[in-house]
Amino acid sequence: MIKVAVVGATGYTGEELVDILVGHPSADIVSLSAKIDKPQDIAEIFPSLSGKISMVCGDLDVKEVNAKADVVFLALPHGVSMAVAPKFLKAKKRVIDLSADYRLSVSDYEKWYKRDHTDKMNLSKAVYGLPELHRDQIKKASFIANPGCYPTSIALASVPAIKEGLAETDGIIADSKSGVTGAGRRADIALSFGEVNESMKAYKINQHQHMPEIEMELGKFAKKKIKLSFIPHLVPLNRGILSTVYMQLKKAVSLKEVVATYKAFYKGERFVRVLDEGIYPTIRDVVGSNFCGIGLVVDKERGLLIAVSVIDNLTKGAAGQAVQNMNIMCGLDETMGLM
Amino acid sequence: MIKVAVVGATGYTGEELVDILVGHPSADIVSLSAKIDKPQDIAEIFPSLSGKISMVCGDLDVKEVNAKADVVFLALPHGVSMAVAPKFLKAKKRVIDLSADYRLSVSDYEKWYKRDHTDKMNLSKAVYGLPELHRDQIKKASFIANPGCYPTSIALASVPAIKEGLAETDGIIADSKSGVTGAGRRADIALSFGEVNESMKAYKINQHQHMPEIEMELGKFAKKKIKLSFIPHLVPLNRGILSTVYMQLKKAVSLKEVVATYKAFYKGERFVRVLDEGIYPTIRDVVGSNFCGIGLVVDKERGLLIAVSVIDNLTKGAAGQAVQNMNIMCGLDETMGLM
Amino acid sequence: MIKVAVVGATGYTGEELVDILVGHPSADIVSLSAKIDKPQDIAEIFPSLSGKISMVCGDLDVKEVNAKADVVFLALPHGVSMAVAPKFLKAKKRVIDLSADYRLSVSDYEKWYKRDHTDKMNLSKAVYGLPELHRDQIKKASFIANPGCYPTSIALASVPAIKEGLAETDGIIADSKSGVTGAGRRADIALSFGEVNESMKAYKINQHQHMPEIEMELGKFAKKKIKLSFIPHLVPLNRGILSTVYMQLKKAVSLKEVVATYKAFYKGERFVRVLDEGIYPTIRDVVGSNFCGIGLVVDKERGLLIAVSVIDNLTKGAAGQAVQNMNIMCGLDETMGLM
Amino acid sequence: MIKVAVVGATGYTGEELVDILVGHPSADIVSLSAKIDKPQDIAEIFPSLSGKISMVCGDLDVKEVNAKADVVFLALPHGVSMAVAPKFLKAKKRVIDLSADYRLSVSDYEKWYKRDHTDKMNLSKAVYGLPELHRDQIKKASFIANPGCYPTSIALASVPAIKEGLAETDGIIADSKSGVTGAGRRADIALSFGEVNESMKAYKINQHQHMPEIEMELGKFAKKKIKLSFIPHLVPLNRGILSTVYMQLKKAVSLKEVVATYKAFYKGERFVRVLDEGIYPTIRDVVGSNFCGIGLVVDKERGLLIAVSVIDNLTKGAAGQAVQNMNIMCGLDETMGLM
Repeated sequence: MIKVAVVGATGYTGEELVDILVGHPSADIVSLSAKIDKPQDIAEIFPSLSGKISMVCGDLDVKEVNAKADVVFLALPHGVSMAVAPKFLKAKKRVIDLSADYRLSVSDYEKWYKRDHTDKMNLSKAVYGLPELHRDQIKKASFIANPGCYPTSIALASVPAIKEGLAETDGIIADSKSGVTGAGRRADIALSFGEVNESMKAYKINQHQHMPEIEMELGKFAKKKIKLSFIPHLVPLNRGILSTVYMQLKKAVSLKEVVATYKAFYKGERFVRVLDEGIYPTIRDVVGSNFCGIGLVVDKERGLLIAVSVIDNLTKGAAGQAVQNMNIMCGLDETMGLM
Repeated sequence: MIKVAVVGATGYTGEELVDILVGHPSADIVSLSAKIDKPQDIAEIFPSLSGKISMVCGDLDVKEVNAKADVVFLALPHGVSMAVAPKFLKAKKRVIDLSADYRLSVSDYEKWYKRDHTDKMNLSKAVYGLPELHRDQIKKASFIANPGCYPTSIALASVPAIKEGLAETDGIIADSKSGVTGAGRRADIALSFGEVNESMKAYKINQHQHMPEIEMELGKFAKKKIKLSFIPHLVPLNRGILSTVYMQLKKAVSLKEVVATYKAFYKGERFVRVLDEGIYPTIRDVVGSNFCGIGLVVDKERGLLIAVSVIDNLTKGAAGQAVQNMNIMCGLDETMGLM
Repeated sequence: MIKVAVVGATGYTGEELVDILVGHPSADIVSLSAKIDKPQDIAEIFPSLSGKISMVCGDLDVKEVNAKADVVFLALPHGVSMAVAPKFLKAKKRVIDLSADYRLSVSDYEKWYKRDHTDKMNLSKAVYGLPELHRDQIKKASFIANPGCYPTSIALASVPAIKEGLAETDGIIADSKSGVTGAGRRADIALSFGEVNESMKAYKINQHQHMPEIEMELGKFAKKKIKLSFIPHLVPLNRGILSTVYMQLKKAVSLKEVVATYKAFYKGERFVRVLDEGIYPTIRDVVGSNFCGIGLVVDKERGLLIAVSVIDNLTKGAAGQAVQNMNIMCGLDETMGLM
Repeated sequence: MIKVAVVGATGYTGEELVDILVGHPSADIVSLSAKIDKPQDIAEIFPSLSGKISMVCGDLDVKEVNAKADVVFLALPHGVSMAVAPKFLKAKKRVIDLSADYRLSVSDYEKWYKRDHTDKMNLSKAVYGLPELHRDQIKKASFIANPGCYPTSIALASVPAIKEGLAETDGIIADSKSGVTGAGRRADIALSFGEVNESMKAYKINQHQHMPEIEMELGKFAKKKIKLSFIPHLVPLNRGILSTVYMQLKKAVSLKEVVATYKAFYKGERFVRVLDEGIYPTIRDVVGSNFCGIGLVVDKERGLLIAVSVIDNLTKGAAGQAVQNMNIMCGLDETMGLM
């Protein structure tokens, strides 16, 4: 059994992580912590966990975690992760960080997250944990930067077209629609039911902090600097991201060929569903699961390749993917605890 | 034209009031104020009002309001209203207070709202503004305590049965289901979309601050002290309260007679729909309107009279009823601006 | 491994059953069938199952099912179950019927479901599958009538009070609020998003077909005929039933004693959470799980015991409970596949 | 007073039309009809109208409508309108058709709606009723083809950029997100709450029947044939369309200039809100109103102009715009009944 600790257990991602790990046949939760006024049983904080686990969640005690755990999940806000990650890495723990602290170059991080990076040493060691694109590195890694939800949905939708040379790498537009839990669990009028329900909006157009992460990831496969247009929207549902990605076709190609290319690219992947011609994915198909669904369209007249992807932002977009990474790092079946 | 001021314009009730008053053929908004960091156009605060009105909303200036307005609406939090209402009343303004500050006896107020009442003098002058039950007093009033949303829905459902002697006045149970805007516009995790959507809960069972108001109002018609059971629930929709009120029948009576009694009681009322036998009201029927729908059931075997009522909590439960009260006080057609 | 067949796999309950059984460590799905125009892979019918299972769902072939399966789940409409159940029972299969066909007496069934009962012989053999109340009989049963969703939520909330003599058995009122999947998966304007969303309604007051089932079940513990008031409401969420049950207290009793009584009654139960004094359950806590949460209130002044219960109507209210019954019948850990 | 008839009063658009016309100071509803089993009061069909209007809605009687009405609104399904419109036009009535029957060229209509056009004569006389773009023609018209909801949202967002030469007319992408009432009021599993709620999907990509209408309308201002990419999405809310329109900039231009151009283009328009730099519109701002909100972004690095528009699909996207057209045709204040 792998002994796991969850640091930052009181957000939506923390709740989801605990829920997945409780049911994981080869993992034992040994420590839960968070910034918290007074220690409290996690089953009181999240009554949904009552009857599944009873464990006190108190302030982080690094020594205790290092004494007990093999794998440490950090479900912390940006900026907080890099203050504690070095302490677990130094103790030779495997660390999976769900924040953005180790996903970007120093310069991008400091520009987009508007703070100094205080752990540049470990930044260079972190492996970007998108298993379908970087499995070999993840296998050998001891430190994972778990991808953001938007980047996961957009990279899975576009990388096959980029890598296989179907699409131009300039002029990509990602129009994403996200449920509300993606914004985290916090008191904010803008996230209140009365504001969000029966409404929709675009926000942070080309200014969302996930933008450089997407550009970095696509750039790896384009083998050049990518300039993306990224337009996130907030829609009234709890969980789910649907990304509609527009790419310029390099040359005329049939939808059949595109679908075949994507199917070949994701051959053997347990969590990616490339849909047949004429079928588009829905959020309902992936809610509560670690799956990503991808539908494809070729717009011949306008020379466009349109890829539509869906994921659950808390699962494949965060906690599920983190557990998938743990499974890979630890040599377990990749789907363990996730089916 | 009646010159009106809205004090406390930046909550959901304030927004609704302004929206109704903008379209009111005989009212002119002359002042908008609220507790606000810096003065701002109301159409920027609520973009829904843009193109309908452009007026700066700044901190309250009592002198200015008294100089400009005939009627003052107070859409303020409990406790704040009683600090300013006396200043408008002293200047002989007509005042319609949407808070709870003038709805209860001093002792009930101080018990349930946990603060001293600082304006007992005006408390005794306030008329409870439920037009269908107190129209004659409202006509002569210059100071209205506008009812709470739950009390409106429960009183309209039960008073005919109480007043006409159909139901016992002991053992009444009001099981109410409310949309989320009833809790106001504020940053609170408990009101955030991720917590409320796809969920439901009972809360403040027999401890909701509207309870003494309901008991007081029913008691007026029962001509005795009423002890109610009041169980509010939060449901995932923006607007609407559905109250299911359970009353013990005094004697066997047919549904036909009950419906006839209610129809007679509300004869001529423009905003109350007593539904025919076998038909129940839905929230959809009243959203955005000042109507109250009432459906009735007689449970012979168990000796129960069940009344189901629906209102829009922001309209008939707050702003709409306030305008209805203004219309009555000012001798206008009662439905003006509300149809 | 237990070989299971699901007959009626294309409704919401069927989807949920398949999803649970796919992840069940000791069950193998060997047959899926439904009334269907042409055979189709279940993963095409429900893309949510793609990547989890691939199996053709065609019209029911009784012989094939009898040749392959040990346990047969019937997720069929009322009236259809009793036409096929005898064929599996005759072949000595264990059968778990999720319809209402085997839950009631002949007379109640024929009165409430308005059709003749055509399999009275097996009706008398069916065990009512509410494990927390009838586990011993379920253990020995080969034929289970799986309870309805409303009856499950109301029985779990009220039976401890009835059995332990806390509450009168007359005058019980069950005010239930249900999500929309409880009405099944079908084309009906009344279930369309535009009608249900941002609305609420009471329906079938004292006329819902689950009423005699609730009365029957409570009657077993009251040891007398029960006359209930049952008022179902439709609320805009996918999954979840919240039942607020009002019972007359037999004598003065403290909330502390009531909570203790309920906790004792459900001692050792893995799927029932009796909440501490002052805490009420929410639907969010049980969605997607087989748990039932119960909160309790004593209303001293009015002599009422109020029990609030929450379940997921598709899990504890249908498919989850069915699998729980299978586990018990087959001698497995009761929570297998359900945690 | 203008005497108006609504033919096809029992859909969502019909309900909205009646609701607006009931409150219109210069319109009298004289006839309501629909395909209906037996004549019924409209206030029974839509209880939301009870207390506002009482009028029997029966099968269409052309003679009666022609005898009573000055203006006839056709809120009929595609294909049905062209069977009855000629009868009212022949009688010299003003007709406003909300179907697609008179919006396209014969060839586009027959291709996209897959039926013969049976009233080509009147097709050539119909004026496309988008007031902000065609007011002068509407003033002189007696027959209006009221625009579709998607075309309204996309044309208002893009025409200023096209007409004023800011954007290329090739390569426009319209990514639209629509609430569910846009699909009409009908029994269809795909529109049921359980399928739509907590989900999202793209559908009919480049195959939606509104596509040629958008291309036609944009083409008028581009003065050339336009080839659009149109990707509609279904999102879980009742009312509202948000369209994110991507256009290639012709040359470098500042956001300030773009906003100024749009503001100049819509100067004096009562129902269009061009938002300041950095502000994006939300559906909440326009629900229940006839307003269109437009936010603008210039993506310099990628040479894109992004316009985000919001409307209420039942109001500005259908019934509200129809009444706006009536007001213009009849020489009334354009906002009458719509504020």
